[in-house]
Amino acid sequence: MESGYRYQALERWLSQGICDRRWRVGERLPSVRALCHQHGVSKATVQHALRRLEAQGLVEARHRSGYFVALQLGDIEKPQPGDLIDGPRSVSVNDLLLDIMRRSAAFDLLPQHGCGDLPPGIVSLNRSIGRSLRRQRGETQHYYDEPAGVPALREQLALHHSRRGWSASADDLCITSGCQHALFLALMACCDRGDVVAVESPGFYGVLQLAEQLGLQVIEMPASMESGLDIDALEKALARWDVRACVVSPAFATPGGAVMPEPAKHRLLRLGRQHDLAIIEDDIYADTAFESPPDPLKALDTDNRVILCSSFSKSLSRDLRLGWVSGARWHDRIVHLKLVTQLAGSRYVQQGVASFMADGSLSAHLRRQRQALRANRDHLIGKLQDWPCDVRVCVPRGGLSVWVALPHHVDTLKAYRPALAEGVVITPGPLFSISDQYRNCLRISYAHPWDAPRARALEGLPRLLLRN
Amino acid sequence: MESGYRYQALERWLSQGICDRRWRVGERLPSVRALCHQHGVSKATVQHALRRLEAQGLVEARHRSGYFVALQLGDIEKPQPGDLIDGPRSVSVNDLLLDIMRRSAAFDLLPQHGCGDLPPGIVSLNRSIGRSLRRQRGETQHYYDEPAGVPALREQLALHHSRRGWSASADDLCITSGCQHALFLALMACCDRGDVVAVESPGFYGVLQLAEQLGLQVIEMPASMESGLDIDALEKALARWDVRACVVSPAFATPGGAVMPEPAKHRLLRLGRQHDLAIIEDDIYADTAFESPPDPLKALDTDNRVILCSSFSKSLSRDLRLGWVSGARWHDRIVHLKLVTQLAGSRYVQQGVASFMADGSLSAHLRRQRQALRANRDHLIGKLQDWPCDVRVCVPRGGLSVWVALPHHVDTLKAYRPALAEGVVITPGPLFSISDQYRNCLRISYAHPWDAPRARALEGLPRLLLRN
Repeated sequence: MESGYRYQALERWLSQGICDRRWRVGERLPSVRALCHQHGVSKATVQHALRRLEAQGLVEARHRSGYFVALQLGDIEKPQPGDLIDGPRSVSVNDLLLDIMRRSAAFDLLPQHGCGDLPPGIVSLNRSIGRSLRRQRGETQHYYDEPAGVPALREQLALHHSRRGWSASADDLCITSGCQHALFLALMACCDRGDVVAVESPGFYGVLQLAEQLGLQVIEMPASMESGLDIDALEKALARWDVRACVVSPAFATPGGAVMPEPAKHRLLRLGRQHDLAIIEDDIYADTAFESPPDPLKALDTDNRVILCSSFSKSLSRDLRLGWVSGARWHDRIVHLKLVTQLAGSRYVQQGVASFMADGSLSAHLRRQRQALRANRDHLIGKLQDWPCDVRVCVPRGGLSVWVALPHHVDTLKAYRPALAEGVVITPGPLFSISDQYRNCLRISYAHPWDAPRARALEGLPRLLLRN
Repeated sequence: MESGYRYQALERWLSQGICDRRWRVGERLPSVRALCHQHGVSKATVQHALRRLEAQGLVEARHRSGYFVALQLGDIEKPQPGDLIDGPRSVSVNDLLLDIMRRSAAFDLLPQHGCGDLPPGIVSLNRSIGRSLRRQRGETQHYYDEPAGVPALREQLALHHSRRGWSASADDLCITSGCQHALFLALMACCDRGDVVAVESPGFYGVLQLAEQLGLQVIEMPASMESGLDIDALEKALARWDVRACVVSPAFATPGGAVMPEPAKHRLLRLGRQHDLAIIEDDIYADTAFESPPDPLKALDTDNRVILCSSFSKSLSRDLRLGWVSGARWHDRIVHLKLVTQLAGSRYVQQGVASFMADGSLSAHLRRQRQALRANRDHLIGKLQDWPCDVRVCVPRGGLSVWVALPHHVDTLKAYRPALAEGVVITPGPLFSISDQYRNCLRISYAHPWDAPRARALEGLPRLLLRN
């Protein structure tokens, strides 16, 4: 061991190892006991060195799990926001993008791969739904759910939202068949054919497809991967065009996990009031926050013009097909549209999820899921740092995916079919726009654990993307 | 005992009793043993008398249950079909009709009354869904169902339809969230705002509400309670107006259970071809047939223009929220609309129902349900015959309701709120039209058993309806 304090030598050794990538981002360092043994030092010395590395941001302690190599962000450049397209356009989604949309909804490089055990949260959820089925009594199968959905579930959801600064009541909420269904009802309620809708770019493709089906025009607003929708650009667009609605994802927007800062939220609401906009808030990723989720835009909505849409699909299970909408001044019309287009939802499922929430199982599930997502994200970012090309990425603190910008000669759309032929589903950038932007970008998800087959698929991505 | 054969005396005595309404329609006669004892005759004599009454159509034998008073139809007049309204109209449904629609969907005079045990078919269905939930494996909760729905369920449905002369394949079917959702997707796929849709009058209010929301114009075609849509009237309307689609219920149409005769089906298909119509077939009541269900119109569709819509809501459970659509030449667009508006359905439910069908449980359930519906219908018709006014009704052989025409001074719409104040939900005639016809008519359902509270509600109906 070299001169100086023994903890300093150990600190240098560890720091050098991280620098040389002996341990990768997200990887666990040797245990305290192992380091003591290996370096012939005391436990206190090891802990002192580790705490100093933690203070430098090189490692992070995880409760009961040890020390892990932390993400180093200084050397990653961020992708640029998109361009403002030059006026409202009608939407026409081609078949290739449709195919990509269907496959990409699973957020998985290997969508046929799903295996292993169900997470304990889902086992407990399924038990709760099973109990709810067994508790059905005479003739209940003959009646329809009330149009807004089962009150017990709406009450639990109101409580859930109240922890994020929005004191909703059960009457403010309507249960839907998922968030896409909520967005559909919202757009159908507040827009007419031909109306213009402002969207984030890059932004959620589901909204673009809805606009196409409802005959709405779309105007793309640049969105950064850090702070989301560019409010300056929106302000200019509103001055020039007659925009009816704005769809926005303030909490961990797909594709890149942007979070809208508070001042931007206030500006957006002011613009909404000035231009009589309907503001449709896609809140679906809020519960994937690694720390506490930001308050929704809806919490600041004193003007009753923010329609909040969300679902359990990202936080719990896509197979539930349960979402919700709070429709502000359009709420009655939304409930009516739901009634007329599909009468009702399944009560037993709603009752099952309401019990699952009431007994604290949802919170427990979200806690476990956050830890897993964070580890998955770190693994992904660590791998991206090794790609043999310029990679720009913004590291999200929630959501399920990162937005990766590659050198301009890369064409992710062209790489889609060859990748698919090898069983790998990539999500090319152009899916997130109607103006053929982002050919050099793609969304990569960390929703799923990086087990061996998925990690191999990730390792193979640069080859698939860069070979053209 | 009088002169003549002893069986003749017994026959006269029973026949007189039925005439005097000592036993009501649908009521069980005293058992063979009781009649032997009471009249001091042999079992053979009693059976001979009963068989003679059966031959006259006065009683009917039910397997293992004895002899019941049969329905006498000779003295009931049928309601008149509606009037052809004099051109296409846009639809505007008022709040009262909306309220009625929500409450009437349960087909129950006492919608809060449901109690007692679940039917064995539903218990077994719930078990099957519970098993399907327990069989979920790792990460399946992360994936979406395929857009058209679970293949195993579509295969079972194709098999189910093949028994009715339509050799569908799983690829011809798309799973929906119920029949209303199927009708919505069908109308959205084949019509544009402003298009004209021909409907039956009286006919299903759900279609009228969809037309309102989709901005479609409606033209009402008279429909009889026996044979459904008046094809002559349709032919005249098609010659005069540009009609895009026709929604029709050939099997046990609501409100009155009409069945379209085969020749009318062929004429309708010919008209469809001549005028390039989309024909939307609402097949939801087919499985409630007391005998074997008629073949669907779709079975005769050589021109790929009949969109069949159906669901399990009337035959199995409304809380399943499972329907299906076979979209003919519009099928791809329908699947796409389903994908864009709500992504997917729940796989575990579809898998559960598929097993339930595969193990024969659906067929067994339908057999039991038919018997129950038939008994419920007979009780209702028997009661209607006693009402203190002219009652016209057509006796259906399937479906869940009868259409009752009362004297012209009766106003069923006016009776709705006072009835509701007494806890009774009536379904007034004007709900089934957009032209304020049928004020003197109402739909009465026999979907639910006539237990004491419901039977009391039925007894009280004439007072509620006739007091004005």
